[in-house]
Amino acid sequence: MEKFTSRDAYLASLASRATAPAGFRFAVQPIRFSPAERDTPEPLTMNLSAAVLDTPTESFAGLFTRNRFPGAPVLLGRERMAEAKSSGVIVNNKIANVCAPGGLEDARHIAARFGELAGCTEAPLFSASTGIIGWRLPTADIERGLPDLSRRLGTDGPLEMSQAIMTTDSFPKLRSSTIGKGSIVGIAKGAGMIEPNLATLLVFLFTDITISRTQLTEALGTAVAGSFNGISVDGDQSTSDMVLAFSSNLRPAVEPAEFASGLNAVCRALAFDVVRNGEGTEHVIRVTVNGCESESVARGCAKAVANSPLVKTAICGNDPNVGRIIGAIGDYAGNAGIAIDQSKVTVDIGPRRVFADGAFRLDPEGEEIVAAYLTEASLADSGIGYPAHDRTVDIVIDLGAGTGCGEAVGSDLTHGYVSENADYRS
Amino acid sequence: MEKFTSRDAYLASLASRATAPAGFRFAVQPIRFSPAERDTPEPLTMNLSAAVLDTPTESFAGLFTRNRFPGAPVLLGRERMAEAKSSGVIVNNKIANVCAPGGLEDARHIAARFGELAGCTEAPLFSASTGIIGWRLPTADIERGLPDLSRRLGTDGPLEMSQAIMTTDSFPKLRSSTIGKGSIVGIAKGAGMIEPNLATLLVFLFTDITISRTQLTEALGTAVAGSFNGISVDGDQSTSDMVLAFSSNLRPAVEPAEFASGLNAVCRALAFDVVRNGEGTEHVIRVTVNGCESESVARGCAKAVANSPLVKTAICGNDPNVGRIIGAIGDYAGNAGIAIDQSKVTVDIGPRRVFADGAFRLDPEGEEIVAAYLTEASLADSGIGYPAHDRTVDIVIDLGAGTGCGEAVGSDLTHGYVSENADYRS
Repeated sequence: MEKFTSRDAYLASLASRATAPAGFRFAVQPIRFSPAERDTPEPLTMNLSAAVLDTPTESFAGLFTRNRFPGAPVLLGRERMAEAKSSGVIVNNKIANVCAPGGLEDARHIAARFGELAGCTEAPLFSASTGIIGWRLPTADIERGLPDLSRRLGTDGPLEMSQAIMTTDSFPKLRSSTIGKGSIVGIAKGAGMIEPNLATLLVFLFTDITISRTQLTEALGTAVAGSFNGISVDGDQSTSDMVLAFSSNLRPAVEPAEFASGLNAVCRALAFDVVRNGEGTEHVIRVTVNGCESESVARGCAKAVANSPLVKTAICGNDPNVGRIIGAIGDYAGNAGIAIDQSKVTVDIGPRRVFADGAFRLDPEGEEIVAAYLTEASLADSGIGYPAHDRTVDIVIDLGAGTGCGEAVGSDLTHGYVSENADYRS
Repeated sequence: MEKFTSRDAYLASLASRATAPAGFRFAVQPIRFSPAERDTPEPLTMNLSAAVLDTPTESFAGLFTRNRFPGAPVLLGRERMAEAKSSGVIVNNKIANVCAPGGLEDARHIAARFGELAGCTEAPLFSASTGIIGWRLPTADIERGLPDLSRRLGTDGPLEMSQAIMTTDSFPKLRSSTIGKGSIVGIAKGAGMIEPNLATLLVFLFTDITISRTQLTEALGTAVAGSFNGISVDGDQSTSDMVLAFSSNLRPAVEPAEFASGLNAVCRALAFDVVRNGEGTEHVIRVTVNGCESESVARGCAKAVANSPLVKTAICGNDPNVGRIIGAIGDYAGNAGIAIDQSKVTVDIGPRRVFADGAFRLDPEGEEIVAAYLTEASLADSGIGYPAHDRTVDIVIDLGAGTGCGEAVGSDLTHGYVSENADYRS
């Protein structure tokens, strides 16, 4: 278990993983702007950032939110998927460019203008935005910042970009995996859907390992299904969620299984980081459900437990509340029309079996052990700008009715969550 | 809008509605017990209560939770539905009799023993329990209290029973409707699923209007679909939810539509009371969705918005956060595979249209109006033991894609909710 005693120690651990794969250049440039939509006493700051390939690549893949109010960058991204090649991505934080008049034209224009400046004329760039919904991008201000952004290409790296794309994130998220003679480096932005409209999950994955577009697309789909799609900070999918992957193909190919394993590891680690970074998150909860008639039942049940406000508040209070877990399983199964043989169901919280043979298994001693386990998994320091450790609360459920397995990762529900979301006036 | 300045004023309003329909006798009796499952310094108090028909009736109907870990009273209730007649119901609070060894036998034994004492030997009683999950009923202690409970039959009334069935409820819930020469009186227990295992929704409806079992069953199904099934305090269905209806058939029948209308009104009012009673609830939110391809889409969308933690926290903070409502609609539609034409969607919060023509419609003046509307709907006094008023926050959505309508009623997500559920150690 990795443990960090300060923000500097955490950032140092990121820096050690942050060597850019061959063939990519990164840049970060802040700009100032005054929003048209609201009187602000002083101009606001927006970070522009970009990751650009030295040579446009055919090996790129993207996955986008299914939300029916997609942001303009999502619409543009879907267009880009039809292109033969991509030159990379340009990103801004602060404004999400969702439901804003002229948003698609703005996104297209900015990506094109930066592409010219950066010499990416052969293939277009993706665009990604995160921040307030409903506001229009300050296109003129952004355009004025693009020459500087272009000049910085190659000066900054993935770590700087992981910091520039943050909104309410309290710490940057960067993970990497060395495979053969190359590497995969991933950065993510997201802190659960915890601040109004600043909720987007953005993930950018960069590799130099040679891989075809088809293989990269397959590997990305699998990795996302087993990581970000199992995240459940509050159950919503934002208007702007986007995962992009690019390969420069400058290092030798590896076995497909080896690449998949590395990509999965990077994505799972980033997904945990995102949950761990939910404002107010005091516990990261991993619910594993085994013994189901299908994988989709297992995943649905895991999400139902991880999403239950009653389970989430109990974990927050370090309370081994078996009744709420049983209630959430039974509620999911009832709504989904799935039969349950209570006598075959088992539930474990951490080291203890708490339900078996159709009845609760918690005696006072067992309650103490589980309560201590929950207390030790608490991220009491998470609000101070770095994740204190890598611990999770593990709830393992077996329905005793098949071989289907599934998993969901979520956060607890705390006073910090309510403060962040209710006491903030957008 | 009804407004109450004190708990006494609220209780007086209930008393004025609480005349028992002809042919029913009510009783309430507290007992003391020491649970086998936990060391408690002093014995605990459990309320026994009962509603018994002077003459067993064929006209009874019941609806039960779909949770796959149903409590013993739910299992017994399903058996009772196969009987020709019923004599009424006996209820206890404090222990839910769920996943407890011998629970079904305990429930059966207590109902039978009380039936003998109360002279209900021709037809059995339903049983209902609410409280802690996993504990066994203190059957011997309950049995010692049954003679007193039997003796009190006819002394107490629906108001006393509505108080006796409370667990974490901060106020009793009773609604009635006078129809023709008879009446419908309903009582409910429930405060959202807000305390561990004490989450059950129990509803008992009593009428003297002559009605067949078939008609009563139909009317109850419709009334529950339009009321309790639209309640969404935190999205869960407990292990013990139960709605029972009985008619003594002592007053003349009325038009079926008239009966249905009265029953609907009683159930809707009780459902609002239950949401209003959620511990920590500061706003009651009613989401109405129109213009959908079907009623089920409309209801699903309404529930998704009412269940969204981000919408719930925004309302708590009196924040007219259009982005979160749009995000929740888009997330629901995306997951359900429903197309949305953004340009046809409208969203109103209270008196203002906040989304139309694919864009946000909130200027600073509109924001102030909506924020003031939310502030006025706040139940800031709800924690003091009575509902201060009957106001709701109305969110009206039109998807512009059909004639299907649906509704969901929910509560906001507050610090009080987290305190009640996290800081409490079960």
